[in-house]
Formats: sequence, C-alpha cells, structure tokens
Amino acid sequence: MTADDLKPLIRAIPDFPKPGILFRDVTTLIGHGAGFAAATRLLADRARAVGADVIAGIEARGFIFGAAVAARLELPFVPVRKPGKLPVPVLAIDYALEYGTDTLEVDPDAIAEGQKVVVIDDLIATGGTALAAVELLRRAGGVVTEALFVIDLPDLGGADRLRAAGLTVEALMDFEGD
Amino acid sequence: MTADDLKPLIRAIPDFPKPGILFRDVTTLIGHGAGFAAATRLLADRARAVGADVIAGIEARGFIFGAAVAARLELPFVPVRKPGKLPVPVLAIDYALEYGTDTLEVDPDAIAEGQKVVVIDDLIATGGTALAAVELLRRAGGVVTEALFVIDLPDLGGADRLRAAGLTVEALMDFEGD
Repeated sequence: MTADDLKPLIRAIPDFPKPGILFRDVTTLIGHGAGFAAATRLLADRARAVGADVIAGIEARGFIFGAAVAARLELPFVPVRKPGKLPVPVLAIDYALEYGTDTLEVDPDAIAEGQKVVVIDDLIATGGTALAAVELLRRAGGVVTEALFVIDLPDLGGADRLRAAGLTVEALMDFEGD
Repeated sequence: MTADDLKPLIRAIPDFPKPGILFRDVTTLIGHGAGFAAATRLLADRARAVGADVIAGIEARGFIFGAAVAARLELPFVPVRKPGKLPVPVLAIDYALEYGTDTLEVDPDAIAEGQKVVVIDDLIATGGTALAAVELLRRAGGVVTEALFVIDLPDLGGADRLRAAGLTVEALMDFEGD
C-alpha cells in the first residue's frame, strides 16, 4: 500500500470536538491491519533515511505510530508525556492552547547529548503541541530536525511553523480546506 | 535477546507513586532500541501463536507495546481509551480504583463480532484496569481469551483475577515481593 491508499482509511467526523470542525480520525487507519502496517513502514523508511538515533512520540496517538516505527527500526522510543505520568524528575515545558495552557514532560535521561531525534505524531494542525515537543526534546539534548505525521492540515499552518523552527516536516497525506 | 535479558532494562523507582511503593518503570526498556524491539517480538510471537485477529492496547503505555505488536503482525490495533478521547459514540465501562472510579472507552465499530482479541498492557498489578478492558472488549463483540504484559507483579493478584475471568495470562517477566 502507498500513502495514497491510506487516505480513504481516515474517517471524517463532523462537528468534533466542536461545531464546524471536521475531525480527521486516524483510529480507522490504526484499526486496518494492512493500512496501519503500511503507515508504519512509510514513516519508518523516512526516519531511517534521515538517520534517526531516537524516535519520540507525543502522547497519546503519537505513541501508537512512534512506538511502531521505533520497534521496526530497533531504535529507542521516547514518550513525550502529559504532566504527572513519568516516575522520575522531568524536563517540562508549558505551551499555549486556544484556551489556557498545557504541559509536556520528558525524562531528561532518555536522550544522549547530540542524538538525532525524529518526532512523530498522528496529525499536525496549528502545530502548538509539536513545537513544544521539539523545544523540550532539544532542551533534553536532542538534535531535532525532522517531524513526521500521518496527516497534515496545511491550512492551519502548523507545518509552516515547524519549518520556521528549523525542521523538515513530512506527512503521509494532507487534507486541505479543513 | 530473550525475556531474561530484558529484566535488567526495567528501572526501579522507590516511593512512586507514593511512599513504600517500588515502581517498576518500563520507560527504560522502551528507551533501549534492541530491548524494545525484542519485547515487541516476544509479545508478537505469542499473539500470533494464539491466532489473534485484533490487538487491543490500554492507554497509554499499553499503546506503546500494543501498537508495535499490531504493526509487526499487520493486525488491526484497537486503543482502549480514557474517557472523552474518541470522536465517536463509545462503549464505556466504569471500574473501581483504590480511591474512586475510572472509565475506559472503545469505538464499538472497532471489533467485528467473534474476532479474537489479544489485550496488551505494560504491567499487571491488581488487574482492575485490565479486567475492565477485557469486559469492555467482550461487550464490543470480541472473543478475549489472552492478555499479555511486559511485567507481572504476581503478589498483587491481578494475573490470577484475569485467569478467574477465563483468560490466559502471560508476561515477559515478573517481580515478586513487591
């Protein structure tokens, strides 16, 4: 299966999480055995091509794709977690949401200084969470130059914001006009 | 690497999440490339041997192992989620914690009637969460007869509780006396 074959496996949910938003749901891709394996393989091929030392995934859907890629490449997987989940003293970053703020945390011992980290999440929209994850992983010592997504919503500008922060951004598919 | 090689990759954290508890942390196994790949392979071998149609993982660390196993076997992955995360009407189950209750949710369309579901999580302690996940997956139509874990804490009785509910339970390692 190619990336083009995967796009029909994404389910569109109207009015989620609020009226007027058409939510692109990767759950149906994850629930398709051949499709999920193909998405994993395509993401892994790219991570291998850029010489990843470590795969980082953003909680929680980023764990699904990131961990599958890491296992396939036999690379370490670093979970970028929501607050209070890690049992060790953490590096943390606060970042702005549309309303209020949120926090991401990593184990500072999870990355050795200078390791090349590829960040994976299911979807890039405005990019606020991904940008915070990249900044956090850099503070932990990682060289973060590549972000991979299953879905890009380019109209929301997140991929462009990540590029402005020095990253190469790739997605298996995009949905414009959302 | 065999399961015996993986045990030293688990980090022991004293007094987490509260004083007197020695927390067995799989983060360090996940962060070891060869170790994480070996754990995935061992779990996948077992899931294949029992004829899994679907792999289910419990949020959030169960996503890391479950998704990696599903991708390896080219099987569907079904996330058993915390409340409010799925964008569709869900099947939900409430279950008791030591203090209070919690809820798990699945997409009722994720499993076809009669499919064989293998449940994966990182750790089995008292088994409350795993039992709730099994019950929920059964209500969704799954035939759930196998639960796989990286770590079993047998003194806490969770594996025995799952066996009493008709499951075969296997773990890559156990820690007794915790």
